[in-house]
Amino acid sequence: MPALTIDMTCLTSSGIGEEGLSESELQDVAPRAAVAVQETRKAHAEGKVGFFEAPRARDVASRVLEYARRLPPEIENFVVLGIGGSSLGGRALYTALAKPLDPLHARSKGMPRRLFFPDNVDPCTFHALLKLCPPENTVFNVVTKSGSTVETAAQLLIVLDRLSRALGEQRVRKHLVVTTDPDKGPLRRVVRDMGLESFEVPSNIGGRFSVLTPVGLLPAAAAGLDVHGILDGASAMARRVADETSVFRNPALLLASALYLHDQRRGRNIHVLMPYADGLYDAAEWFRQLWAESLGKARDLKGNTVHVGPTPVAARGATDQHSQVQLFMEGPDDKVILFLTVKERGLEVQIPRGVLGEYDDFAYLGGHGLGELLDAERKGTQLALTREGRPTATITLERQDAIALGELLMLFQAATAFAGSLYGVDPYDQPGVEEGKRLAFGLIGRKGHEAYAEAASQVMKALGDPRFIL
Amino acid sequence: MPALTIDMTCLTSSGIGEEGLSESELQDVAPRAAVAVQETRKAHAEGKVGFFEAPRARDVASRVLEYARRLPPEIENFVVLGIGGSSLGGRALYTALAKPLDPLHARSKGMPRRLFFPDNVDPCTFHALLKLCPPENTVFNVVTKSGSTVETAAQLLIVLDRLSRALGEQRVRKHLVVTTDPDKGPLRRVVRDMGLESFEVPSNIGGRFSVLTPVGLLPAAAAGLDVHGILDGASAMARRVADETSVFRNPALLLASALYLHDQRRGRNIHVLMPYADGLYDAAEWFRQLWAESLGKARDLKGNTVHVGPTPVAARGATDQHSQVQLFMEGPDDKVILFLTVKERGLEVQIPRGVLGEYDDFAYLGGHGLGELLDAERKGTQLALTREGRPTATITLERQDAIALGELLMLFQAATAFAGSLYGVDPYDQPGVEEGKRLAFGLIGRKGHEAYAEAASQVMKALGDPRFIL
Repeated sequence: MPALTIDMTCLTSSGIGEEGLSESELQDVAPRAAVAVQETRKAHAEGKVGFFEAPRARDVASRVLEYARRLPPEIENFVVLGIGGSSLGGRALYTALAKPLDPLHARSKGMPRRLFFPDNVDPCTFHALLKLCPPENTVFNVVTKSGSTVETAAQLLIVLDRLSRALGEQRVRKHLVVTTDPDKGPLRRVVRDMGLESFEVPSNIGGRFSVLTPVGLLPAAAAGLDVHGILDGASAMARRVADETSVFRNPALLLASALYLHDQRRGRNIHVLMPYADGLYDAAEWFRQLWAESLGKARDLKGNTVHVGPTPVAARGATDQHSQVQLFMEGPDDKVILFLTVKERGLEVQIPRGVLGEYDDFAYLGGHGLGELLDAERKGTQLALTREGRPTATITLERQDAIALGELLMLFQAATAFAGSLYGVDPYDQPGVEEGKRLAFGLIGRKGHEAYAEAASQVMKALGDPRFIL
Repeated sequence: MPALTIDMTCLTSSGIGEEGLSESELQDVAPRAAVAVQETRKAHAEGKVGFFEAPRARDVASRVLEYARRLPPEIENFVVLGIGGSSLGGRALYTALAKPLDPLHARSKGMPRRLFFPDNVDPCTFHALLKLCPPENTVFNVVTKSGSTVETAAQLLIVLDRLSRALGEQRVRKHLVVTTDPDKGPLRRVVRDMGLESFEVPSNIGGRFSVLTPVGLLPAAAAGLDVHGILDGASAMARRVADETSVFRNPALLLASALYLHDQRRGRNIHVLMPYADGLYDAAEWFRQLWAESLGKARDLKGNTVHVGPTPVAARGATDQHSQVQLFMEGPDDKVILFLTVKERGLEVQIPRGVLGEYDDFAYLGGHGLGELLDAERKGTQLALTREGRPTATITLERQDAIALGELLMLFQAATAFAGSLYGVDPYDQPGVEEGKRLAFGLIGRKGHEAYAEAASQVMKALGDPRFIL
């Protein structure tokens, strides 16, 4: 029995009447949906893409687990130096599967060590983080597929310098582990030259599809999570969705097709993922990258200018009922809300009976549980949206465990690949971020970027109109 | 000299050509913008609205500071039990002005205690939080203006029960402090009946506009932040924007007008706030509530059905350059990006020269700083967007300090009020969240909500079409 089910009734006319997708709209898209599966399968068969196969690489799981077992007890901190796809997946696993509020808990609470994902290059945060994590108690996991990501490179240089000063050249190697391309890129050369321990990101798996490679699995192993369980779940979902060409039998395909249709035919171009479980919020941020960067494209596969791509939004239930839900309910009908919930939370906090029992506004809560309340709020919100004819769907995890997480991550990866095909774009590239990067290189004076420095200074001259600076 | 400037050149044709707002579009909206200021001023004069006046209440500042001074040294944890507007403002101040990575730091690092904003009612998080915060070392600040917010009420009952059991009825009072309406609501009655210490949310200031009342200031004081500085900054901004009716001289009014025009005339209905400073990300989440809940409305002030409201998105620079920026650059031209940055970060982390100096992909970074890199990335991203004709603006804080934060929060509050007027909606209500709340009450069987229980069960029957559950 799968650990994840998805109820898409309220994306269709069956749930919300004419505001939902009709049977015939879904039938219309079915042939193209079938092609989406075939194209994704073909890309795999040709070796261009590999995310469906990642969970089958059990030798990788063994290796990351073996590495984690070898970490000496004094290693209290495992810091992931990576950004975007090199950080979001590992963080999603850690937040979902480690103890709540980690890394605030000490190791004594049952986890082998605490993890940090600084991600950004904010000097204030990075300085504070280095103070929290003394060299002798810390391993830094440098993660960049290209091997040259600027933020990660900067962090690496700072950390290398500090480790060398504190521990001496010899011991540095015990506090660094690299995850990068198996052959290419400068970081692989550093690995060879310095004799560093390293793991590989398969060359046919891009950053945002890499959570089930050592990018996500090494941090998971370091945190003592159930790596094999994650892969079991992902494999199970891959079996359900990789080859099934019927939109009515493939959950990833139906999800992709429904979101695509709501965007392109109904103008609902904002896709909200709203977990009702704090531990799943980082999975929503991981999804946000996957959906935004894969589908937001200027050109289609034929080279036509299209400027497509839905805007993903992460929301947190019940918190955002007091923030974004007013807009979701009453604002423009331009959104689809995907609820994400957990059936067996494994823990309930009872609201005591009788406390403030003499006040009607408090007494009714006694005897209920916080988890029960959270579920009622989710259902109440979905029902209210349903009565307004606003489309929603609900993904339910049986438990918030490794298997369900594996299924969830694979579901979204597959849905993203299929959606790319439906939108007619390449879901695996990100050409739009290069320009900003090059201009930034120009601004800091990197050799070979003189033309960008010049371009930057010309644009900057034209900006800063004093009439509009207040 | 103001601690905040905002450069809006790239919202206009002066920065991005015809994709930007023309002089005549701005002139066209100017009379309505002037009315927006007059309406907001009138609402203040009539006592209906009070956010401009909040920073002038220096007795409130004195009281919260005096309360914080009285907290005994064993109080290591200050936990804010509130949700939405009762939590986001205090958290924004804490994240921006306390030490980075607080509450991971111990008190020894110079702050009097650590703060927590659990916000949600997730049982797993709440259970973990209560374990982290022993009763004898913790004060719980219960914040709800209505006094009956369901999530906060549930948390209060659980906490009251635990405090009573651990400390006995008598000592409970020393570990609870309430922030609620001065007269109305059940929590005010509890305060009177139990003799609890309490603070007031002025009746004319709603939750999302309450950061400069004890809602935000009491947590700020408990964290040892510069409460008077926050109010000084807010006052300074209020003086700049409360009465200035010229759209060309009032930064909040120009911002509101430009965002309104980009939404309503240019179809740019997604407004992104992207701080390039980790400490300001929670301010972006605070803004997200303010903008979404104030402007997302089904009806205008005349009762016409309008369904308006831009969708605010929070992004983090440089991190989101590896996530959402691909979409911002190449996807549909439906966004305005507001960058938020800090001029003097007060701390720089140097990237050492010579480390990995033999690799071209690393050597160019030596001698630069992380903050410098962050600035170059922000500029590179803005320039790339500018070259694509995508509208942006940049808010610069001189320093990330109390005064600048006060200015920032007041700028957005004023802009929101003015935007409400331009959209023709009431920015101070949130009628759309009531329905979901009542349905949730029906689902947990709250007395008086039997009709909603019935409505809920009827809608639920119609859902769950087995064809769409996969």
